[in-house]
Amino acid sequence: MTETPRDIEALIELMSRLPGLGPRSARRAVLAMLKRREGLMAPLAQALATVALSARDCRVCGNIGTSDLCAICADPARATGEVCVVEDVADLWAMERSRAFKGRYHVLGGTLSALDSIGPDQLRIPDLVARVAEDQVREVILALNATVDGQTTAHYIADALAPSEVRITSLAQGVPIGGELDYLDDGTIGAALRARRGV
Amino acid sequence: MTETPRDIEALIELMSRLPGLGPRSARRAVLAMLKRREGLMAPLAQALATVALSARDCRVCGNIGTSDLCAICADPARATGEVCVVEDVADLWAMERSRAFKGRYHVLGGTLSALDSIGPDQLRIPDLVARVAEDQVREVILALNATVDGQTTAHYIADALAPSEVRITSLAQGVPIGGELDYLDDGTIGAALRARRGV
Repeated sequence: MTETPRDIEALIELMSRLPGLGPRSARRAVLAMLKRREGLMAPLAQALATVALSARDCRVCGNIGTSDLCAICADPARATGEVCVVEDVADLWAMERSRAFKGRYHVLGGTLSALDSIGPDQLRIPDLVARVAEDQVREVILALNATVDGQTTAHYIADALAPSEVRITSLAQGVPIGGELDYLDDGTIGAALRARRGV
Repeated sequence: MTETPRDIEALIELMSRLPGLGPRSARRAVLAMLKRREGLMAPLAQALATVALSARDCRVCGNIGTSDLCAICADPARATGEVCVVEDVADLWAMERSRAFKGRYHVLGGTLSALDSIGPDQLRIPDLVARVAEDQVREVILALNATVDGQTTAHYIADALAPSEVRITSLAQGVPIGGELDYLDDGTIGAALRARRGV
């Protein structure tokens, strides 16, 4: 591939590091951009540069915004008494898309993992404990993924917050809306059965 | 999604226009970049800006390079007498990866298509005819895709070049290296049988 300009090769290599893109699809994406240099490539370069410069981690909750305090933490209309703990900014965005939650967030930045030697101090868990002690938090909602690491982390946080008098809850487990029993795993069906409610 | 900064939303929207990325995977890619702002996002913005500014279509063959004459057309070691006609820069890159061809290229920029009303004048076919007449081209190799549109275009080009005395060839069709007959379509097996050779 000596005949491909070095700049383009470097661009393909960087693009192929994005999740969901391999060397082949990165090349396809770069070619599509090369065909639309004015309409797509230049605006994308500009948008990336803007975000790379302006993006900041919120000092309170760990969400990504454009100032030291994210839009959610800065919004006086959001209830300060309810803090929803999520693993990741992606999970925060998913919660926001549901429009079901009107409180504030706390982004851990991952889950506890003995394998990757990630302990509580790497995860903003001490920040959460301090935040619950200082602010007037009434309820901590653990919205962690229903994975082994997620649930281990939820248990650890529940233990860490036990000395405070905050109410600790977690998302309900059960059949997803539109879910068909035939396609659900046994664990989900079992959890839904154990948590059954009167009609 | 009012709480996602507008810059980030704009970036996700632009990323989702790339082939192979939808709204969901574009969001994942942007989040991955937001976590690596220094290591990935800023360099990618820089690489995109560089290429968007420097990339040019070669005035002879239509390949994409960083000057008016691409590296292949500028290379005195490449045979000028053989011109390989491809639909797209992606196909040119694929030919180059094979390291099997040491001549020059002519990139059409697509195929004839009645449906999309793409005629010969949109495709750099007149350029090819002029190039064959002016330069000392001995052989034109039609390396178009084995699709209906590709083969229609190949026939059209062969007709357009008939008045000149240039030799016109096309890539062989047959069983791909490593191909298993059981997984090949009937058309390929038929073509391979018709083009069978003595052992």
